[in-house]
Amino acid sequence: MIISAQQLNEMETRYRASLINSLGGFKSVVLIGTKSAQNKTNLAIFNSLFHIGANPPLCGFIVRPDASPRHTLQNILDTNFYTINHIHDGIYKNAHQASARYDADVSEFEAVKLTEEYFEGYDAPFVHESHLKFICEFKQKIDLEINGTIMIIGQIQEIILPDHCLGKDGFVDIELAETITCSGLDSYHSTKKIGRLSYAKTHKWPENI
Amino acid sequence: MIISAQQLNEMETRYRASLINSLGGFKSVVLIGTKSAQNKTNLAIFNSLFHIGANPPLCGFIVRPDASPRHTLQNILDTNFYTINHIHDGIYKNAHQASARYDADVSEFEAVKLTEEYFEGYDAPFVHESHLKFICEFKQKIDLEINGTIMIIGQIQEIILPDHCLGKDGFVDIELAETITCSGLDSYHSTKKIGRLSYAKTHKWPENI
Repeated sequence: MIISAQQLNEMETRYRASLINSLGGFKSVVLIGTKSAQNKTNLAIFNSLFHIGANPPLCGFIVRPDASPRHTLQNILDTNFYTINHIHDGIYKNAHQASARYDADVSEFEAVKLTEEYFEGYDAPFVHESHLKFICEFKQKIDLEINGTIMIIGQIQEIILPDHCLGKDGFVDIELAETITCSGLDSYHSTKKIGRLSYAKTHKWPENI
Repeated sequence: MIISAQQLNEMETRYRASLINSLGGFKSVVLIGTKSAQNKTNLAIFNSLFHIGANPPLCGFIVRPDASPRHTLQNILDTNFYTINHIHDGIYKNAHQASARYDADVSEFEAVKLTEEYFEGYDAPFVHESHLKFICEFKQKIDLEINGTIMIIGQIQEIILPDHCLGKDGFVDIELAETITCSGLDSYHSTKKIGRLSYAKTHKWPENI
């Protein structure tokens, strides 16, 4: 079927939100952990994380100022550091629950039954139950005037990962680390590897590596 | 294991690229189709697509000026429209091959053995073999000075999807559409649904819907 621009325009708001959120394909879904200037911990779920570059190691995500993770933005601006924690099957309901609109005086860690964890030299809280996680230093905030959302860019500082997931070429087998993916606003999925492919050259077809 | 910021900093370039590209979790992987001002078609693979908002329907992706899809950027700036095509198991090698550095006078459609498809009212080429696809109108270019990459924001115009994948609430079952996901630079994965969860409320635990 074809959905036209005009049909999109006339859709009921929540129907369109569900549709448009599905179109981007499978997405990264992570928990972002922060501390406020008053030392209160916060945890929020995001599905807009994207790679910006490896040298320096940078990633970005989008914050909706009207959505529940609004404390995340303020905490990052106040304290400069935040953790990004992958999600596995065993904690996906806890992770999803972090999107509820808890008051600022409630720590989502406690509310969604996940455990704070700290590593030397950094104040921001990690999720103990997460298998693969890293800490970012805030680098840039870009206001997207086109719809009032905000892009946050951070530099990856320290990475915690299971030894057996790191390959000889630097590839991290996140499927082996049980990282899951999401689609739309609320659908969670595990993965099954189809294959890794060799670096593409114009004169030959890619091979499984 | 813990990888420190200093260890990251001292890594061999390709090893770090592979590692950092893995950290963002499972990613959307799509083919972007464009036409040049001279009417030459182009196809490139991207794994940085992200949702920006549903009203208006906006998505973004990152272009590396030094990478092979450089023609994509120029074509978008010249012609204002581009198609985004989901990838399934049956075409993932073709899709990966589109990352080879073909000359500007070669159409990747022909080189990677995928078929151009057109819909009334739009000049940009879709991928016929793709099950779920949509066309975007270019809206904004943001130069990320932090590492010289470029963010492109577009507004979703028209969507082509299989009838049976669209749910009553607007959710598109992209797993049913056989959309795949990727991790790192070169690893492709199919998915298996764990569950959809109800909208999170502070006073109760999410339920499967």
